[in-house]
Amino acid sequence: VTLSLGVLAERLGCELRGDPALTITTVAALERATPGTLAFLANPKLRRHLASTRASAVILTPDDAAYCTCAALISHNPHLSFARAAGLLHPEPAPAPGIHASAVVDTGARIARDASIGAQCVVATGVEIGAGCVIGPGCIIERGARIGAGSRLVARVTICHDVVIGARALILPGAVIGADGFGLARDGERWERVPQLGTVRIGDDVEVGANTTLDRGALEDTVIEDGVKLDNQIQIAHNVCIGAHTAIAGCVGIAGSATIGQRCTVGGGVGIAGHLNIADDVHITGMSFVTRSVNTPGLYSSGMPLETNTLWKRNMARLRRLDQLARRLHQLETTMGITPEQGHGDE
Amino acid sequence: VTLSLGVLAERLGCELRGDPALTITTVAALERATPGTLAFLANPKLRRHLASTRASAVILTPDDAAYCTCAALISHNPHLSFARAAGLLHPEPAPAPGIHASAVVDTGARIARDASIGAQCVVATGVEIGAGCVIGPGCIIERGARIGAGSRLVARVTICHDVVIGARALILPGAVIGADGFGLARDGERWERVPQLGTVRIGDDVEVGANTTLDRGALEDTVIEDGVKLDNQIQIAHNVCIGAHTAIAGCVGIAGSATIGQRCTVGGGVGIAGHLNIADDVHITGMSFVTRSVNTPGLYSSGMPLETNTLWKRNMARLRRLDQLARRLHQLETTMGITPEQGHGDE
Amino acid sequence: VTLSLGVLAERLGCELRGDPALTITTVAALERATPGTLAFLANPKLRRHLASTRASAVILTPDDAAYCTCAALISHNPHLSFARAAGLLHPEPAPAPGIHASAVVDTGARIARDASIGAQCVVATGVEIGAGCVIGPGCIIERGARIGAGSRLVARVTICHDVVIGARALILPGAVIGADGFGLARDGERWERVPQLGTVRIGDDVEVGANTTLDRGALEDTVIEDGVKLDNQIQIAHNVCIGAHTAIAGCVGIAGSATIGQRCTVGGGVGIAGHLNIADDVHITGMSFVTRSVNTPGLYSSGMPLETNTLWKRNMARLRRLDQLARRLHQLETTMGITPEQGHGDE
Repeated sequence: VTLSLGVLAERLGCELRGDPALTITTVAALERATPGTLAFLANPKLRRHLASTRASAVILTPDDAAYCTCAALISHNPHLSFARAAGLLHPEPAPAPGIHASAVVDTGARIARDASIGAQCVVATGVEIGAGCVIGPGCIIERGARIGAGSRLVARVTICHDVVIGARALILPGAVIGADGFGLARDGERWERVPQLGTVRIGDDVEVGANTTLDRGALEDTVIEDGVKLDNQIQIAHNVCIGAHTAIAGCVGIAGSATIGQRCTVGGGVGIAGHLNIADDVHITGMSFVTRSVNTPGLYSSGMPLETNTLWKRNMARLRRLDQLARRLHQLETTMGITPEQGHGDE
Repeated sequence: VTLSLGVLAERLGCELRGDPALTITTVAALERATPGTLAFLANPKLRRHLASTRASAVILTPDDAAYCTCAALISHNPHLSFARAAGLLHPEPAPAPGIHASAVVDTGARIARDASIGAQCVVATGVEIGAGCVIGPGCIIERGARIGAGSRLVARVTICHDVVIGARALILPGAVIGADGFGLARDGERWERVPQLGTVRIGDDVEVGANTTLDRGALEDTVIEDGVKLDNQIQIAHNVCIGAHTAIAGCVGIAGSATIGQRCTVGGGVGIAGHLNIADDVHITGMSFVTRSVNTPGLYSSGMPLETNTLWKRNMARLRRLDQLARRLHQLETTMGITPEQGHGDE
Repeated sequence: VTLSLGVLAERLGCELRGDPALTITTVAALERATPGTLAFLANPKLRRHLASTRASAVILTPDDAAYCTCAALISHNPHLSFARAAGLLHPEPAPAPGIHASAVVDTGARIARDASIGAQCVVATGVEIGAGCVIGPGCIIERGARIGAGSRLVARVTICHDVVIGARALILPGAVIGADGFGLARDGERWERVPQLGTVRIGDDVEVGANTTLDRGALEDTVIEDGVKLDNQIQIAHNVCIGAHTAIAGCVGIAGSATIGQRCTVGGGVGIAGHLNIADDVHITGMSFVTRSVNTPGLYSSGMPLETNTLWKRNMARLRRLDQLARRLHQLETTMGITPEQGHGDE
């Protein structure tokens, strides 16, 4: 796709400084841009790149525009405008509507006329697939599942029975939505399975990453609200609720019945224990271990940063005896008659 | 399914208090139950909910029964009885026996007459599938694999060649059983693959979660004993052995040749290093890092709980110097002529 | 396959001590070997097993050969020679070339004549599959992807559009290569997707484990160099670069734009933050959390080893107040007029 800068400015709602007839064919990073590309500057600290960029045009803020020597699109959110420009210049190819001959679609499924069902798919009875959906190759959609208009299942996605997905979902390969939760009842030394009778309800504009798994609820449902974005290889256990517009990075595990608020961010590799509440607007850095509810918005962390193996071993030998070390310190203080200052080291 | 309370009592082996003709159509949590539902009370601390529940009947212990104002089923294990009641009221739909027309089944495979092979499956030569098995859509079962009677592969499960699975297995979508272990031999700076000649042997009544991977052994087999329950996204490396009735939560990784005992529980996100032994009846809390063998039954933990980012940063700066801090403390003690009390801070 | 010891010696380039006519049918561990098997000894500490082994022959170093009472193959790298012997005795079965009748292969795909495309595969337009490739059942290869000669996709692998894979790749079931990276732009409280316009470029001799995910780049490509070995359930985010001959164990997560050097090893469960650099020849032990660049070759670690739950709780209560504890220590030192020795506890 080739677009003139004038058309891009109009579509993006940006003020244009420069020649509206300039042709743009792709987007690039500021430092690697070539003629014909559109770049962006979101961070004022990188202004120095403006002098040397070979981009035909740059999306930037009004403040940064003064430093730009080439054409510019003025935006109050350059990253967002850039994302949209990239989408305009590189639209997702739309497969032809219709059901591939190799797909197995039950006669009891209702598929919108303009939806596309890819090769080797399996669509069971009672399934509803909304207008404009693209179901890529190898997807399995079990009985009674519903997928809202404009959703895209890229390939090899498994949607288990009776799962409900809103409009404009994007679900990447290998995701499994609605498999049975891990519900076990003890029977002496044996475990017996607890039937998982809930389902998964997913709002609009949700993304689910590759090989991510979302379990169905035990008695009630697992709930993912509008605009939630889930990266790859995330595990969401039964009866978890995730609030609107929360974004979760890869390899996070969330145990059963945890409730995560709205507009939260969760870094990669975080583990969240079950049956706890995370308030709205909580941000958790990567590899943290969440063992308690978090009631106050803010930034939270745990996890031990990397050291040389030598230093780590030495410190871990001490950490094993940290309680004893603290007692020894107390003994010294007592001996010397010192009352430690309380203070800002202890929150 | 609708059952009378009398029939339920009989099937569950529970004493009935109340009208045997009461009809029950589903199960629910005590606080959310409606007429026609069966609830349960396993924790005496929640007795207060008995007064207000709208459930038609409640499964509870003899001790709690006195507090119940509606009909009751008396059980010494209410959670287990409830799980079974849920299964009776919501039986898994059984697909019709036979091989779906779109499945590719080798003539050298032996499929029990009453087994069901779903759409788009691939079943290779030498495979044996036992009586009553349900192989859901999109499963791949490679040459020589054997699956015991009554097993259910929900959908899109991959069973690699020569894997042996016992009776009544439940395997969730995306699981991969018997892929090659990660065996590498050094060749200068290059790595060369070590053929993985063992297989995976799985006992009866085992569950394997969605997108969980179990690698085949290098020379001997990877072994999963009877009644083991594995949640989603678990990685089991080659030559691991897991003892009977051990339950492992999601996102756990177990490195090669580790041996886990019987009746253990492993919390979510735990990492277990290779070539070590975990005794029977060991319980490991979530996100722990197991670097050594555990020879004594009990409860074990590691991992750093969440803090505010500010406090975490401050403490981590200190942790980096913990060994130095301990030396400073020792220097003070020496200066003061104090011999620290040994004690219960150090196990 | 049965081979004489003489033929094995020749094929492996090993000096033979013993009867070249001895027949070898399989390989085994030294302690479990039976007549007809070939074992190996790589670690001199295990020499004692040589006296009692029932192996017909053992691969070992010149130094260890003196202790061997049975036939021997002398190698300067017994593990490597053993791996190759295992490969000679247990060659991977080669499926017949050609395209399975159930596979859906676009007429615009170019498939080498001797390649094999398994049952239920989907191969889109523009795909190129090199000589001798084995594409197992259920694989999906999207438009424009290229797979080099001699590669093997075991089963149910997803290769997204335009991904480039070199020669002799081994990709295990459930792997997803080239799904969209997790690129989001803020739009008020909403997130908007950033199109992921790069791809994944993979060198020769690369292995990708079961259910591992490698995301495509945002603007530039994600790059995996020659000889990289990736275990199961690894998550590689967009624009990561991994240097040649680096090996990464299971359950590792690498965030966006991280660069890992050559010949590194990364233990299981490690998390690596985004936008940082790991030098060549860096080795990171399991479950570590890499929050900063590592510029010097060596061995690095973090993560808290397992303790009893009782001790862990006690130590964690102290760790929460570690900064305060350090301040208390400083107060004592000041009171006593002691300047702490600086030293080797602090690197």
